[in-house]
Amino acid sequence: MKVIMAGFGTVGQGVAKVIEEKNSSIKKRLGEGFEIVGVSDSKGAIYNPEGLNLELLLKIKREKGAVISYPDVEKLKSNEELINREADVLIEVTPTDIESGRAVDDILYAFRSKKHVVTSNKGPLTLNFKGLNEEAAKNGCMFYYTATVGGCTRMIDVGRGLSNGAAIISFQGILNGTSNYILSRMTDEEAPYELILREAQQLGYAETDPSHDVDGIDTACKLVILANSVMGLESSLKDVKIEGITGISEDGVKLAKSDGKVIKLIGEIEKSRLEVSPRLVPKGHFLDISGTLNLGLFKTDFAGDIAIMGRGAGQMETASAILGDLNKIISQTR
Amino acid sequence: MKVIMAGFGTVGQGVAKVIEEKNSSIKKRLGEGFEIVGVSDSKGAIYNPEGLNLELLLKIKREKGAVISYPDVEKLKSNEELINREADVLIEVTPTDIESGRAVDDILYAFRSKKHVVTSNKGPLTLNFKGLNEEAAKNGCMFYYTATVGGCTRMIDVGRGLSNGAAIISFQGILNGTSNYILSRMTDEEAPYELILREAQQLGYAETDPSHDVDGIDTACKLVILANSVMGLESSLKDVKIEGITGISEDGVKLAKSDGKVIKLIGEIEKSRLEVSPRLVPKGHFLDISGTLNLGLFKTDFAGDIAIMGRGAGQMETASAILGDLNKIISQTR
Repeated sequence: MKVIMAGFGTVGQGVAKVIEEKNSSIKKRLGEGFEIVGVSDSKGAIYNPEGLNLELLLKIKREKGAVISYPDVEKLKSNEELINREADVLIEVTPTDIESGRAVDDILYAFRSKKHVVTSNKGPLTLNFKGLNEEAAKNGCMFYYTATVGGCTRMIDVGRGLSNGAAIISFQGILNGTSNYILSRMTDEEAPYELILREAQQLGYAETDPSHDVDGIDTACKLVILANSVMGLESSLKDVKIEGITGISEDGVKLAKSDGKVIKLIGEIEKSRLEVSPRLVPKGHFLDISGTLNLGLFKTDFAGDIAIMGRGAGQMETASAILGDLNKIISQTR
Repeated sequence: MKVIMAGFGTVGQGVAKVIEEKNSSIKKRLGEGFEIVGVSDSKGAIYNPEGLNLELLLKIKREKGAVISYPDVEKLKSNEELINREADVLIEVTPTDIESGRAVDDILYAFRSKKHVVTSNKGPLTLNFKGLNEEAAKNGCMFYYTATVGGCTRMIDVGRGLSNGAAIISFQGILNGTSNYILSRMTDEEAPYELILREAQQLGYAETDPSHDVDGIDTACKLVILANSVMGLESSLKDVKIEGITGISEDGVKLAKSDGKVIKLIGEIEKSRLEVSPRLVPKGHFLDISGTLNLGLFKTDFAGDIAIMGRGAGQMETASAILGDLNKIISQTR
């Protein structure tokens, strides 16, 4: 199965690594493996219908910083040119961008040229969930985005599986590892937000610009995707009531702690109401997860309450969720 | 889709209730619903190709104690006769029996007469996992048994989903609600095993004969099914090293507690080693779940550690898992 990949940052390189590692066992199990025939990054794109050498590709990206330094392949200028080339699947792993519609256009273009799409990019799904899914269906293409919510916990699949035998009444989740890390450390250290944020940035748990994480936007995007894909809503970002963690003071955390509680950034879906806000959770409650973990709690009519927990982010975790989606495509096209 | 059901105890009646409640929404979503055309219990079987009235069926079972009191239908003497009648799916929900091969024979017979099978019965899967799955494949039939492990948590599906994108290295779980309830209460109350067991029996959390639960056999059966269905092993009950909770003393529980620990009955799979035994778990560790909850923890190579938690048993929870399996069959036969 021929694959092209738009984006070759942390996630894209992770995908190349897992494919390199797992391809022979996938071939053995499913009769067919994956061949990466094209890749792009911000500096340009390359394509070789015979397939790229992944070890070499990773080395060149690491040493030269751009995939166009890969020798003896066709060089292309845009994702659109790349998507135009022959392949079965587009993996869209450019950074999440909820303002421009660039990734939306790339994915729509892929469907129109009859390519299945797998993405970890919350941007296009937040901007145009319905349009993308409709275009996929119209062209007989598969469209998977497991990595967008809760990473390797496969929260979307768990929710869909549940909804097969029960009605999901509500969802509560901790979906952003960065803000959960900051809140956990503020509680443990009784230290102010700014200090813990700087520490998290130094340790690589927070970006240089952490605004989407700490303002609740990242959690809100994930809620929109989950609500639309699992609970059948047609929501968008403007429907989410959002409050982040930047206003939480050292004193607020201490006060909660003295009362046996912790502050958590909770994303909640109930009927058509979507909300992201800091909430008080009793210490030891199972929403009281620490560090960079993610947790999703589905309340259902007949199946009771189901919780799933795991690492929500990380290069190999995200790549593993993408590989799972690729394997779904292979299984269903054979 | 025509369904016959072998067994009409707590689980079977739950299935009738969820089908009654959800059938119209399933028809709307998938274009087809379920018609229960035959049912058996220990006193006999009934069949009506036009379908049974589920409300009446539940009332008759409740008031007369036997489905053969249902009016104006064909009465049959055995499950075999029932399975011989025209239908698309057999739901096998007789009580788990790991000694006799009766349910194995019924399921094999269903496959040979080209019926898909859904079961909540751990017995046949523990006794002859490979033979049943091979016979299903040979006859082009689907075979689902989500309800056998972790009930509504759909632990088998979660494990299979994970293994699509990562290798599962090991599994640890709390898979028996009764023994977990007893251990939790022994810790909270600092009371002896016998006293708490009697209390659990009065509250309906333990059977009159609780031996399979407290001896670890129930957990061992679930481990075998999980190991074979998710991790590709070919294990059977005799491969499991089993120690139950009956030997745990009040003093042992107190000693653990004074050391900040709790005793939990843990089922573990690591490579080809399967083991059920009481283990010390630090208080507050996420294996420290209380009451009748079930929890499964998958350790993977690329997707980190993933935990799933929910109610492992209960009439409607089990029925909901069975309905999920039925919906998988409808989706794949359309």
